[in-house]
Amino acid sequence: MNGAQSLIRTLVYGGVDVCFANPGTSEMHFVAALDTVPEMRGVLALFEGVVTGAADGYGRMADKPAATLLHLGPGMVNGMANLHNARRAHTPIVNVIGDHALSHKGFDAPLESDIDALSEWTHGWNRTSTDSAVIGRDAAEAVAAARTAPGRIANLVLPADVSWGPDGVVASPIEPPPPSTVDESRIAAVAEVLRSGESTVILLGAGATRERGLLAASRISVATGAKPLIETFPARLERGAGLPTIDRMGYLSEQVQWQLTDVKHLVLVGAKAPVSFFAYPGKASELTPEGCKVHTLADLGEDVAAALESLADSVAADAKPLLQEPSRPALPSGVLTPQNWAEVIGALLPDGAIISDEANTSGLMIPMVTAGAPRHDVLTLTGGAIGQGLPVAVGAAVACPDRPVVCLQSDGSAMYTISALWTMARENLNVTTVILNNRAYAILRMELMRVGAEGAGPNANSLLDLSTPDMDFVKMAEGMGVPATRATTAEELAEQFSRALAEPGPHLIDAMVPSLI
Amino acid sequence: MNGAQSLIRTLVYGGVDVCFANPGTSEMHFVAALDTVPEMRGVLALFEGVVTGAADGYGRMADKPAATLLHLGPGMVNGMANLHNARRAHTPIVNVIGDHALSHKGFDAPLESDIDALSEWTHGWNRTSTDSAVIGRDAAEAVAAARTAPGRIANLVLPADVSWGPDGVVASPIEPPPPSTVDESRIAAVAEVLRSGESTVILLGAGATRERGLLAASRISVATGAKPLIETFPARLERGAGLPTIDRMGYLSEQVQWQLTDVKHLVLVGAKAPVSFFAYPGKASELTPEGCKVHTLADLGEDVAAALESLADSVAADAKPLLQEPSRPALPSGVLTPQNWAEVIGALLPDGAIISDEANTSGLMIPMVTAGAPRHDVLTLTGGAIGQGLPVAVGAAVACPDRPVVCLQSDGSAMYTISALWTMARENLNVTTVILNNRAYAILRMELMRVGAEGAGPNANSLLDLSTPDMDFVKMAEGMGVPATRATTAEELAEQFSRALAEPGPHLIDAMVPSLI
Repeated sequence: MNGAQSLIRTLVYGGVDVCFANPGTSEMHFVAALDTVPEMRGVLALFEGVVTGAADGYGRMADKPAATLLHLGPGMVNGMANLHNARRAHTPIVNVIGDHALSHKGFDAPLESDIDALSEWTHGWNRTSTDSAVIGRDAAEAVAAARTAPGRIANLVLPADVSWGPDGVVASPIEPPPPSTVDESRIAAVAEVLRSGESTVILLGAGATRERGLLAASRISVATGAKPLIETFPARLERGAGLPTIDRMGYLSEQVQWQLTDVKHLVLVGAKAPVSFFAYPGKASELTPEGCKVHTLADLGEDVAAALESLADSVAADAKPLLQEPSRPALPSGVLTPQNWAEVIGALLPDGAIISDEANTSGLMIPMVTAGAPRHDVLTLTGGAIGQGLPVAVGAAVACPDRPVVCLQSDGSAMYTISALWTMARENLNVTTVILNNRAYAILRMELMRVGAEGAGPNANSLLDLSTPDMDFVKMAEGMGVPATRATTAEELAEQFSRALAEPGPHLIDAMVPSLI
Repeated sequence: MNGAQSLIRTLVYGGVDVCFANPGTSEMHFVAALDTVPEMRGVLALFEGVVTGAADGYGRMADKPAATLLHLGPGMVNGMANLHNARRAHTPIVNVIGDHALSHKGFDAPLESDIDALSEWTHGWNRTSTDSAVIGRDAAEAVAAARTAPGRIANLVLPADVSWGPDGVVASPIEPPPPSTVDESRIAAVAEVLRSGESTVILLGAGATRERGLLAASRISVATGAKPLIETFPARLERGAGLPTIDRMGYLSEQVQWQLTDVKHLVLVGAKAPVSFFAYPGKASELTPEGCKVHTLADLGEDVAAALESLADSVAADAKPLLQEPSRPALPSGVLTPQNWAEVIGALLPDGAIISDEANTSGLMIPMVTAGAPRHDVLTLTGGAIGQGLPVAVGAAVACPDRPVVCLQSDGSAMYTISALWTMARENLNVTTVILNNRAYAILRMELMRVGAEGAGPNANSLLDLSTPDMDFVKMAEGMGVPATRATTAEELAEQFSRALAEPGPHLIDAMVPSLI
């Protein structure tokens, strides 16, 4: 068994049986080995940003890592923006980064670069395998590292001669350490804060934005009056009818400051105290109000949901969570507006949907109009590196083939990783993509005003304009094998959205929405 | 004047008057400042890989840097694959990388990452500007660094508060040091080697692949019998009727070994001794034959062309260079083949064309059939990071608006940076793109055989196959505003290629060529 074969067998043994790949010559032995380990599903993408974004979506929904296969440093850099998002989402991923043979490293061949520096940049677990006999063990450690709470990126560099070398050994899975348990004393301290009756916000982040955490937070809120909020960009938020509806913290600092007005205590549960997404002249970066005390109930890597449940048992033993009633907006009509396109989604969102949300400014109404829709998951842009929505939808659909995936995707961001559509077609994934085609980097129009930049005129505005030429996403999608239609009215959007959901495989709707700004 | 305004004015003062940009919030003051310095042309791209690849193409053709505008670390990583290629091409580029305000750096906001590590990865000149009063001086130094021979990447990190802060000062241009002159003694030593009559190859790299270097190398060859070769992937090769035709070193190590058979002396002129692009089991990485002595006439950063001319004056005072006669293949007919599509290009290549060549396996015949075409430049994939061809064509067309740009682009590589088509349409660039649509990563099919990988079967081959679904580049191009047609025969290609060249603005031809492998 060569090194590559032992690597893939070890991954499968450890439960990693999907590999999003964009290979090159140095990975050819890994590619060949896929035929000797058919349990591993190779999913080809045409660009590494799709590979890593798909692994992110997969990991968020499968609660276990996918592998990626990347071609040396230049292949890895193409995937790093979505690895940045995955790091912020605490998604478990095992990157297998092919490298030149160890014997070839000293020659500065054209594709040579410093892969270690790139691995460091991802804040991940890093290992370069140096021997075919130990690549199996290295892979088992990589899987365990990726699965260690709260989840992280593991980068395993695979030199070509380690891949093709003999004497590969399959390694047994290594169980990662369980998340640490939060001390009783910390729970008691927060319980005391809640019993004080002072104005308190509980900020829910990683590990607290799924059913267990939401139910516990709602009980606490019902019993104590504390207000729960979800962090601005949750990796995976469970919501819809039958679950508590909890608002997200705003994107704009003005919104956050309004949400935290007069709050005396901020309790962090797998989240960080809020900071402004960007800095603005004369405005604060830290958004916790003056005089507000910050308490950490549970940190990343701790058993966040269990801590919340213990806290609920302590302060809200008899309280019932406040559950969202089913409720849908009526189907709207007329030319598409920033409001009515969202109402169409809210009216028709199918049961068990997964929303990959990169709607940006166009999506402001989506949380409101989908709150009472059937239960669904929302995956958001955790790290701000745009070009996430389509790849994450690919990965979510691979992880959950029986659930409908709805990708709400702004036009500018779509173009970063547009080739994800081809992978959707190739794998016949049940993804319905709605492009919010407002023909602008609308968020930047807003930010240009907010930063108080002097003298902006036509030259500046032209760099935020996507209408010269207009982009035709119907043609682009069809060019990559995805059936597509264009919607200019709410009626058209509703009809096309329903039809797309009813038919298997991917569809795209180019929704001509006006820009908010 | 704020920092951003002083920065842009300094760039323009130093001759840098094009900025390929994909901005975000932290760059909004830079964007606004474009209206106060209208001499700077901002060119919007929809993805940073297009931004940096365009700057590479621009720098190769303009012999001076363009600026780029990149959005923090996650924006920069998207551009780094083409920066890798630019580094290998020794292209002068000034990257302006927006960053969070200095006052905001400590808060680990979502887009925060280690930009310094990324700058280091590019092997560039690196500076983080920390004061609005000195950003002008920093910019002048960045331009000088980029222009220092042989040309390099300068990374200037621009925190948002340095950009918006007051008291910006425009700095005068700084003249970079001239390339060092090669010692007479080194020239004399190589002259002695050439006079020995022993079998010698002169390998021409950066600085030697343009008219002066080629003429001198040809004279030397005529007088001494030494064989000149161009490095495998030259950044910019001038060729065509009226210039010496000099073969390129092969891509495959077998080709190189054949080209260097029985060679006793290898003279390097701005090039490195050849190494295999990849390693293969049981095959050599270093390709200089045993017993062959390696001599360096001129290294990167030295005045390579002048050294070659001195050498020619020494050993070939009376020799005339061997100049290529005009010669064209006949226009072929019939269904497209790997040979006849290239003959169409050779038959019709216009005078003064710039070829951006990422044709990969499909382009094997191109050098032969264009040797006697009118004079033209060829820009090749210097660093092996695919996705270069379309962006480099954008940059070349911006640098040389009066010359026709022909982009020969393989299908798989095209998809990495396909949104370059939109920028071509937006700027109405005279680029004729010919997609070599062979529906495969054909080079990997070849490499899969060459690496001797065991057990490759349908799973492996499916990862190299681009035909499920087929890609329709006509639709994709039209979706981005570029008129497009499909060619399945040589006659169609000839007619469409002629028409595209005759009309201003960009065109794309989806050429259905069979895969070689």
